[in-house]
Amino acid sequence: MKAPVVLKSGKNFYLVSEFSGELHTHKGIIRLEELKEKDFGDTIRTHLGVEFKILPFRASDFFRLFKKAPTPVMPKDIGMVIAHAGLQPDSLIFDAGTGSGVTAAYFAYFNKYGEVVTVEKRPEFAKVARENFRMAGLKNIHQIVGDAVSIADCFKKEFDLVFLDMKNDVEMVPKAHSMLRQAGFLAIYNPYIEQTRAVYEKMLDAGFKDVEAFEAIKVNLEFKRVGTRPFVNIFHTGYIVMGRKV
Amino acid sequence: MKAPVVLKSGKNFYLVSEFSGELHTHKGIIRLEELKEKDFGDTIRTHLGVEFKILPFRASDFFRLFKKAPTPVMPKDIGMVIAHAGLQPDSLIFDAGTGSGVTAAYFAYFNKYGEVVTVEKRPEFAKVARENFRMAGLKNIHQIVGDAVSIADCFKKEFDLVFLDMKNDVEMVPKAHSMLRQAGFLAIYNPYIEQTRAVYEKMLDAGFKDVEAFEAIKVNLEFKRVGTRPFVNIFHTGYIVMGRKV
Amino acid sequence: MKAPVVLKSGKNFYLVSEFSGELHTHKGIIRLEELKEKDFGDTIRTHLGVEFKILPFRASDFFRLFKKAPTPVMPKDIGMVIAHAGLQPDSLIFDAGTGSGVTAAYFAYFNKYGEVVTVEKRPEFAKVARENFRMAGLKNIHQIVGDAVSIADCFKKEFDLVFLDMKNDVEMVPKAHSMLRQAGFLAIYNPYIEQTRAVYEKMLDAGFKDVEAFEAIKVNLEFKRVGTRPFVNIFHTGYIVMGRKV
Amino acid sequence: MKAPVVLKSGKNFYLVSEFSGELHTHKGIIRLEELKEKDFGDTIRTHLGVEFKILPFRASDFFRLFKKAPTPVMPKDIGMVIAHAGLQPDSLIFDAGTGSGVTAAYFAYFNKYGEVVTVEKRPEFAKVARENFRMAGLKNIHQIVGDAVSIADCFKKEFDLVFLDMKNDVEMVPKAHSMLRQAGFLAIYNPYIEQTRAVYEKMLDAGFKDVEAFEAIKVNLEFKRVGTRPFVNIFHTGYIVMGRKV
Repeated sequence: MKAPVVLKSGKNFYLVSEFSGELHTHKGIIRLEELKEKDFGDTIRTHLGVEFKILPFRASDFFRLFKKAPTPVMPKDIGMVIAHAGLQPDSLIFDAGTGSGVTAAYFAYFNKYGEVVTVEKRPEFAKVARENFRMAGLKNIHQIVGDAVSIADCFKKEFDLVFLDMKNDVEMVPKAHSMLRQAGFLAIYNPYIEQTRAVYEKMLDAGFKDVEAFEAIKVNLEFKRVGTRPFVNIFHTGYIVMGRKV
Repeated sequence: MKAPVVLKSGKNFYLVSEFSGELHTHKGIIRLEELKEKDFGDTIRTHLGVEFKILPFRASDFFRLFKKAPTPVMPKDIGMVIAHAGLQPDSLIFDAGTGSGVTAAYFAYFNKYGEVVTVEKRPEFAKVARENFRMAGLKNIHQIVGDAVSIADCFKKEFDLVFLDMKNDVEMVPKAHSMLRQAGFLAIYNPYIEQTRAVYEKMLDAGFKDVEAFEAIKVNLEFKRVGTRPFVNIFHTGYIVMGRKV
Repeated sequence: MKAPVVLKSGKNFYLVSEFSGELHTHKGIIRLEELKEKDFGDTIRTHLGVEFKILPFRASDFFRLFKKAPTPVMPKDIGMVIAHAGLQPDSLIFDAGTGSGVTAAYFAYFNKYGEVVTVEKRPEFAKVARENFRMAGLKNIHQIVGDAVSIADCFKKEFDLVFLDMKNDVEMVPKAHSMLRQAGFLAIYNPYIEQTRAVYEKMLDAGFKDVEAFEAIKVNLEFKRVGTRPFVNIFHTGYIVMGRKV
Repeated sequence: MKAPVVLKSGKNFYLVSEFSGELHTHKGIIRLEELKEKDFGDTIRTHLGVEFKILPFRASDFFRLFKKAPTPVMPKDIGMVIAHAGLQPDSLIFDAGTGSGVTAAYFAYFNKYGEVVTVEKRPEFAKVARENFRMAGLKNIHQIVGDAVSIADCFKKEFDLVFLDMKNDVEMVPKAHSMLRQAGFLAIYNPYIEQTRAVYEKMLDAGFKDVEAFEAIKVNLEFKRVGTRPFVNIFHTGYIVMGRKV
């Protein structure tokens, strides 16, 4: 068993990235060296005797365990991008607007045999993301602190997927077109309708094909003794505009 | 450039799995040998002079180009499963209810460095799927024609993900629990609410954790000169119930 | 029993506005004089012996039986306006953009002890609407053929509800404010988001309070032997912006 | 100007049913006799000098100002029932499951020239409703404290609309059929899917036609400086099953 691992007790989750030192939980202290002799599915006890299950770290944990920026892209949205792009796990991905790193980490995880280049302008966010990537043990992320629009010209026809979650996304569209391999995808995330329209139209201008704008609404079913009913936690997160360089 | 490739002209798409013989399209005949000297992004002409663009085959093409069963699982739904399970590309996946093979093909594509075992009871569907997998050039799918419930006992704690789109899904739940590795996921797809509730409750009984039932509704934005408005092609496809073996 | 009545056989409906002459249906000819001796709930036969049930004409029949303009406002949307405005049945209503008259007819029906003034620029639509109102036997609709924006100044603080489904709705907003009684409501219907925003902002400028923009999505449940699932016939029709003169 | 009136200051609303005594608000005390000389649209001041606008009481205020039971039927749902039934304002309505009286009050308000009979089993709810009706000045509501199923047999073919929001709704369905006039409507409100299916099937059994089950989802648009986005306050409230006695 190798780090990172997740320790779970009820609704509480902790991410452990090294098997040394102590972890102070709300239910007592765990000596992390003990993890060395354990296996996934085993339990470990705090000094108060509370048991935690040991689980492998999964992509779905990024959302729960990362230090987050105000509006992270959610798993449902990343799943839509991956499925519609038909992402293969040995791709080269460009992610502009690292934020806290949730999206880059998701991509790096699925794209395990490829690489992710992520760019963030604001050093304070880049720092949070760097720590998140380190905790998650992800080695295939290359972080750049800088302006994606300026940096874009350094890359030529190399990327399989460009993902944008950044302010200047309209300006970035033609540069993304240059950066993509033949048949590569551009996906742009945006919470607002006007900006979504602006990038949609810029993508058509820039020559992208099969351009589509959509959102994914996750509707849960609640099963109670008295009956079943739908519920929604967050109705709208953001729109995704996707197109292909053909 | 290697097969399979996709030939695209406007809204018409053709999947080419061998670079020999002729392809009869609605816009004329293409001599497929010519593809040997071409590259992605090049064009090829029919005997009528109509041009087709040459594109790599992507997961998103399964849905468009496969011979389909009546109600295939859609990309949005597969994206939700992949994102929520945090699938890694070197996993072992069990897929029960092959149907026409769309789901298994998607999984095989993302899970490029892993394997997919897919089981189908009805030989006529298995045959369609086999042909689809061959056309798509997927080597990491293992097809079994038989009853998933009976076969399940042959596998022990080996799978990272079990996906069910089959009639006897309730009966299959405890067997799926036995087949999964620690921290593996079970995902069950079902169009109807009553059956969704039945598998949800069976999953709780069988000891799955973090069990959740949901659907993903894809809402598109249409950008016309006169204004923007939302539209939906298909509101409801199916519910997904997911849980984790912890 | 008085006209208008509705004759129903299976999925076929006919609106009868006079008890004289013949009605040629797909299932044979009905002599309408026979209706004079009948009552609601009775049946009447065609010369081929097919039975039709005799029903009173209801607001819900406008949508089915009227000659329609391309995008009529639907019952769900009219219901939202009536409920949110708290319409009383002795109100004075101004309806601009008569179209085929579905909305005016609905209002006239609920507002049985009040009056509806409806304005339409295009004489050909006004003519269709006039015929529809006559067929429905509605006496409390006053039709004006002309430009709502110009006519507006003739009315002063008299209306309880102003409803707009017209091109120049932004221009009409301040005039609507002048036309409304204290605590009256303005409701504006618009299929597109940009125009919806424009009227929303104009309403705030014009001094309307409690301004809100929304749509109503009708999700049906389909109950089949094999199970229950949601379905949607038309996802998006239009947005409604409502505000109150306070 | 006659009671009831609504006093509004910003987001605060008060319902005043008599023009005597004092009203203690969060912004000071109002002497209600002063209202006798005022008109709608005027303002009245508290002893602290804070101004309140005087507004007529509207149906939309029931939802805001009534003492409420746990899950009141919302305006959007009542609007759907009124629009789909094509309710006329001189109808006879039967409302079973008074609760806090929101629905009965709405019906009484629209149905100003008709009557509403409302039945509630639990005396404590009936008492809250009675007080609400008195405050709202509604004279055309007849309250019965008792069991709707037992009482139903006392009424024969008299009602234009029967509305049920009660536990024993399935049992009530055939009785509702007997109580309705020819072409009258039954509408049943239910938060849960299983119960919705049960009443739907019972309505078909009982001979109702054009039976339909649906919910109305209200999606708002939020217009911010940075852009427009949809939001939903409450996704699911309840399903409505409607059918007609033909």
